[in-house]
Formats: sequence, C-alpha cells, structure tokens
Amino acid sequence: MTISPLAPTAFPALPAIAGIGLATAASGARYKGRDDLLLMTLAPASTVAGVFTKSDTAAAPVCWSRTITRRGTAAAIITNAGNANAFTGTRGDTAVSALTGALATDLGCQPVDILVASTGVIGEPLDAGKLTPFFPAMIANQTASWEQAAKAIMTTDTFAKGAYRQCRIGDVDVTLCGIAKGSGMIAPNMATMLGYIATDASVPAALLAACLVAANDRSFNAITVDSDTSTNDSVFLVASGAAGNAAVDNIDDPLLAEFRTALADLMQDLAIQIVRDGEGASKLITIDVAGAADDATARKIGLAIANSPLVKTAIAGEDANWGRIVMAIGKLGIGIPPAAIGIDIGGFQVARDGMRVATYDETPIARHMTGDAIDIAVTVGHGGGTARVWTCDLTHGYITINADYRS
Amino acid sequence: MTISPLAPTAFPALPAIAGIGLATAASGARYKGRDDLLLMTLAPASTVAGVFTKSDTAAAPVCWSRTITRRGTAAAIITNAGNANAFTGTRGDTAVSALTGALATDLGCQPVDILVASTGVIGEPLDAGKLTPFFPAMIANQTASWEQAAKAIMTTDTFAKGAYRQCRIGDVDVTLCGIAKGSGMIAPNMATMLGYIATDASVPAALLAACLVAANDRSFNAITVDSDTSTNDSVFLVASGAAGNAAVDNIDDPLLAEFRTALADLMQDLAIQIVRDGEGASKLITIDVAGAADDATARKIGLAIANSPLVKTAIAGEDANWGRIVMAIGKLGIGIPPAAIGIDIGGFQVARDGMRVATYDETPIARHMTGDAIDIAVTVGHGGGTARVWTCDLTHGYITINADYRS
Repeated sequence: MTISPLAPTAFPALPAIAGIGLATAASGARYKGRDDLLLMTLAPASTVAGVFTKSDTAAAPVCWSRTITRRGTAAAIITNAGNANAFTGTRGDTAVSALTGALATDLGCQPVDILVASTGVIGEPLDAGKLTPFFPAMIANQTASWEQAAKAIMTTDTFAKGAYRQCRIGDVDVTLCGIAKGSGMIAPNMATMLGYIATDASVPAALLAACLVAANDRSFNAITVDSDTSTNDSVFLVASGAAGNAAVDNIDDPLLAEFRTALADLMQDLAIQIVRDGEGASKLITIDVAGAADDATARKIGLAIANSPLVKTAIAGEDANWGRIVMAIGKLGIGIPPAAIGIDIGGFQVARDGMRVATYDETPIARHMTGDAIDIAVTVGHGGGTARVWTCDLTHGYITINADYRS
Repeated sequence: MTISPLAPTAFPALPAIAGIGLATAASGARYKGRDDLLLMTLAPASTVAGVFTKSDTAAAPVCWSRTITRRGTAAAIITNAGNANAFTGTRGDTAVSALTGALATDLGCQPVDILVASTGVIGEPLDAGKLTPFFPAMIANQTASWEQAAKAIMTTDTFAKGAYRQCRIGDVDVTLCGIAKGSGMIAPNMATMLGYIATDASVPAALLAACLVAANDRSFNAITVDSDTSTNDSVFLVASGAAGNAAVDNIDDPLLAEFRTALADLMQDLAIQIVRDGEGASKLITIDVAGAADDATARKIGLAIANSPLVKTAIAGEDANWGRIVMAIGKLGIGIPPAAIGIDIGGFQVARDGMRVATYDETPIARHMTGDAIDIAVTVGHGGGTARVWTCDLTHGYITINADYRS
C-alpha cells in the first residue's frame, strides 16, 4: 500500500509513560507478517475514560467497554485488528467474554477490569481462541514502543499515527502520549476510529471523562473522510497518576487548564493525522464556518461541505468550482438565507452577500487549489457560532481502496 | 463522453401531445454544437403543477417558478442548460425577469405566464441577452421532438431520458409524455433534476399538483446518486386538456385512478433512468426496506444505505462486503436494534436477527454482485413501514467526471 502523500515524515518520538505498559503480538488470525494485537496495561491507581460510536449497530466490544469505562478504572485494554466483532449477535458477546476472561486470569484481575476494542471487517464471527494464547507472552514482555503499538492497530491506514504533549499540573511535569488508527469509515459522531491517550497525570475518573468529551468535540468529532460512521469507534483516555501531581477536583480548576489544552491539542493532532491518511487523500481540507446561530449549527454546515462528494471531487481535480460549496450549504435545508453567505478560498474573497464578488479573480484561487492544504472559510450570517472541521479530497484512490478492501 | 453502460438501447417513441409545443435552439452561450434552450408552450386552457428543490440556496428560476406554478396556469416553460443561475443574487432575479419579459412579449402574454428552469454551473451570472434573441425563431418553429427536447436540457447526462404512458380517464384515451435530465448532484429532497411531464388530459391544477406530489415521493424523491441536493431541481406537470375527458374533481375520483398510476409509473421510469445515468454508474442498485416504524423511516434507512460511499464502492468492486450495509443502518442513530436487522442480497439470505445466517454461503451472492442490477433487501423490525430506493455504485468514473467537470 502506498503511503499517503500527506503523511508526516516520521513517527514522533513519543516517550514512555510511567505506569503504562505496552505489548504487541502477531496472531496471524487475519493479517500475515504483522502485529494485530495490542495490550495496554495500567498501573493499579489508574483512572480511565472513554467515548464511543453512537452507531445503533455498535460492535460487541464497544457495548462492553462503554459500560466498563463508566466505572472509571481498568487494568488493561486489549485490542485486535482485522475483525470488528460487529453484528455478530450473541456470539460477539461470547467472544468478548472469552477475551476478557482469559486476560483477567493471566493478569490476576477481574474481567470487568478489561477494556476491549476491535477494528476490521464487520459481520464475521471473531474466534477469540486464536488470540488468547498470545496473552501470557505479551504480559511477560511489555516493552513495545508507541510506534509498534500504533502499527499493531492499523487496518487500511498507510502510516502509524502518534502525538505527544508535555505540560504542567501545578509544579509537576506531566506527559500525554496518544496513538490512533483510522482512514476510512470516518465521520462523526463520534470518534470514528480507535484512539488511546495515556498520561502519567493523576486525574479523577469523572474529570478525565469531562476533559475527554470536551476535547473530542473539537478533534475526532470534527473530522470526516467519507461520512460513514463506524460500528467500532472508541477513544480511551487513561491516567496512571505516576507523575504525582497535586489533586484536582473540578473541571474548572486552574491547575487543570494546561492539561486540558494539551489534551485538546494532542487529540486535534491525531484527528488531523487521520484525515491526512483518509483513504485516497491527496489534499487536507480545513473548513472554517462563522456567523452561525450556534457552534453546533456551524459544525453541521462545515460537515455538509466536508461530506459533499461534489466538493471533494472538485478539490481532487484542483477545480475552483466553488458553486458546489453553495450547494452543500443549501442542501442542509436549515434556513440559511443565500444573501447571508460569504465564501473565501485560500484567503481570497470569492463571494459576499449571496453572490460572487465583483472583483472575483480565479487566478490566485486556482493556484491555491494546486497545493496540498486547502482552506475554505464560510460565513453564513451574523451569529456567534463557529466551527472548524477537517476532511480530505475524494480521489480515485478512495475507489481503488474501497472497491476491493475485504477481498 | 462515454454513454452509461446502464443506458437503455434507444430513446422511446414518445408521441406528440396535443396542445403542447416544443422548440429547441443552440445559443452557444456555453456549449458548442448542441442545443441548450428548450421552449415548451402550453395551449390556453392548460393547467400546471410543479415540485422544486428544498435547498436553502435554490436558484433564481426556482424561486420564480415555485411562486408562478401556484397560480395553476402558464403559457410556456423556458429552460436553459449550462448555467444554473444559482447564487447569483439580485442579478439572478434580473436575468429571470429579462427571460420572462422577452418571451412574454414574443408570445403575447404576461411574464407571470412564463415558467423558467435552469441547469449548469452555480455562481456565474447568467447573461439573458445571449438567450432571448433565439426566442422568436423558436416560437415560429415548434416542431422539436421529445428526444430533441430531452437532449437540449442535458449537462453531464450521457443519454437523453424519456418515457410515456397511455391510459384512460373514463372512456377517453389520454397520453403522458415525460423527459428528464440529471446525472450528478442527485439526492432528495426533492426531485434533484429537471423533469417535464406533459399530458393531453384535462385535470384541474389543484388535482394536478396533488397527483404530482404523490407520484414524486415514490420516484424522484426515492433516488440518490451522490447525496448532493441541487439548487435547481424542478419537475413540471402540465395538462393541455386537449383529450377532452370528463371532469374530475377530487383526488380520490375513481376516474383519476388510471391516470395517477400511469403518472407514478412514468415518473418512476424517468427517475430510474437518471440513476442509470448516475455519474460513473456501472450498476443499478435497488434497496427495499421493510419492517420500519413508518414509510418515512424506511426511506431514511434506504437512503442511508444508498448514500454510503463504502456500500457503493464495495458494489463497484463486486465485493459482497455486506457489513457495510450494517454500518450504514447503524450510523443513522435512530434506535434500530441490531437484533432486529435482517439482510438479503440478490434474494439470498445474508443475515437474520442481528447476525450472519448459519447457512451463509457467499458463492451465489458473489455471483449476483457481478451483474449490473444489484438487489438489497433489509428488514429492521416488525413495523409496517416500507420503502424502495434506487442508487448506483460509486466508481472511478464518478471521480473522473467530477474532478474535472467545470474546467
């Protein structure tokens, strides 16, 4: 598989996080010659939070982990790539029980201490027996790097995705490391991929969840590749507490401000990496919406533009066919008056007050369209609602990848 | 441009409709060497009805014609292809006034007697002065065939679309002829294309409108090519009354039953032709949904499947990757329990009660996928709601056409 032209030059140098162990293995269940299992173990005092797909057909591991994360603690997260264990009925639940049961025995904890994530083909029964024999060796050798971890969870991804941030809680340095996978079937809500962020900070579970939800809204929930929401999206935030920072006890605690910013920034970094690896992507598209009644409306408008096949193919063709942006705004049917619509591309004025600007000159816009970062700014009125969403173009590569992925 | 592999072998032999005149012309405003203007004139006693896009950024001609059709009468419909006159602000309205003013003068009627439709590029001012000089010659020579008329309104269409039906109102034979254009930017609501149905029946305007809306719901409103709703969709139904049938005075009049069936059937024929000409289409996909709470929910589910890029690319690749159908149902997030979902492809059982059937055999399904007509049937519960929607696959052809349409 060709690496996305929008890929970063290298995987960043993510440091280890005290209290977090990583191990990978190659089960051979589906893929040959690569890791497809990831074990993350958490020190005893760790807290956890998670956000999950809102799909009605959420996979068995999602249903399990959604419940378990509410407890706020866990001993480990086990992930397999290649089989989503989605739409597998009671057999899916049985497979989750087999995975959590075996790992709990091996780790000496309870099955409810085990979080599970899966990614891959939907509808095929998962044979847990092909995975569990690898658990003891993984537990015995938790020396995987973040890059190895990121590679073990890939499916159609063309590069491993990671990011880290450092900040302070009070006078203590804390680190956040994150990895993610995702390339197609990417659309809110919500995360539409797998994401794992680990920190050595000490943050109570309820606060951790609040931080995660807030950061998620402006990161994984603000990206789309193809409008198709996965059955398996899961993002986990785990905090080992090893850094030993002072206690924080509410979301508005000033002590937590840097951490929240770092988390949001890291998650946005990972989210954009997913878009950069969007199936067939040749251009990263950033869409800013302003002047909407509220942020939610602004995001809806941004996503309508971001999900329009006609907008995305025009950009793939480097065609400044901005009328398709107008179409995408209009098709929502939420009462945006055309006369309120303004459009800029690449910082150049295209339209104001519902029509092309008198001074419209396509030359600089056409030049902008030949780059690999396309910026679209839309105003839809005088409201205070804003949003920024990211997507990629729709190319022959998307068709090639998806017309023959499973076979 | 290559003709769609799903095109019918020939344009059907549509008869003339008494009281309806057709004329075409080549203005050269955008296209070279082909007609791009269509004039349809209506005998004085004619009634008219219309249905239009629900886009917030509806084009100037749509805003005009939506108002005018409510009067129930008209003298003519003028259509231009190549420029949508959409998102053109007050200049767009001025262009509509210029077109209706000139044609009204030439025909000896009022501007409010003139309906207008446009299709083509969005956002470029329409120069009416390049079109109006052709009106007198068109009025003088109303001898165009339905096929010529259908060709004059094409944009990215690869074949002209027409259909006709004959039926009886009481003891009088009446004929319905219809033409349509549309290939991309096709999605409800609503019609997402241009359509013109003319009949020699005598039907009061209010009844005509009721017949049109009902037939539209199960035809043009049940198709999608790419989920992108046009700014210019317009469907006109005109009745010259020349057949001289007995008066009908309510929608449930048994005299009108045959006519309503013929109209619905004709519109469904045209709608499916549009899908067959979907940009890049290589397969016609028919999706039946049953067991929903109501018809509207069933249609929503059908369209979620029909609009999923992952479902459409899998079908393009002849890959029986039915897990993507599960994903598409789930992503709606409307509370369909997975255990209620059943799926058949090509008449073969795939899933029942939320999981793959025990007897699942991919061989006959894989064979079905190699054909050019793909049938998907989904059940989502025990409700009485049903829907049938049509779409096409998503292929390299769609990318090729749309990445470089305007240039």
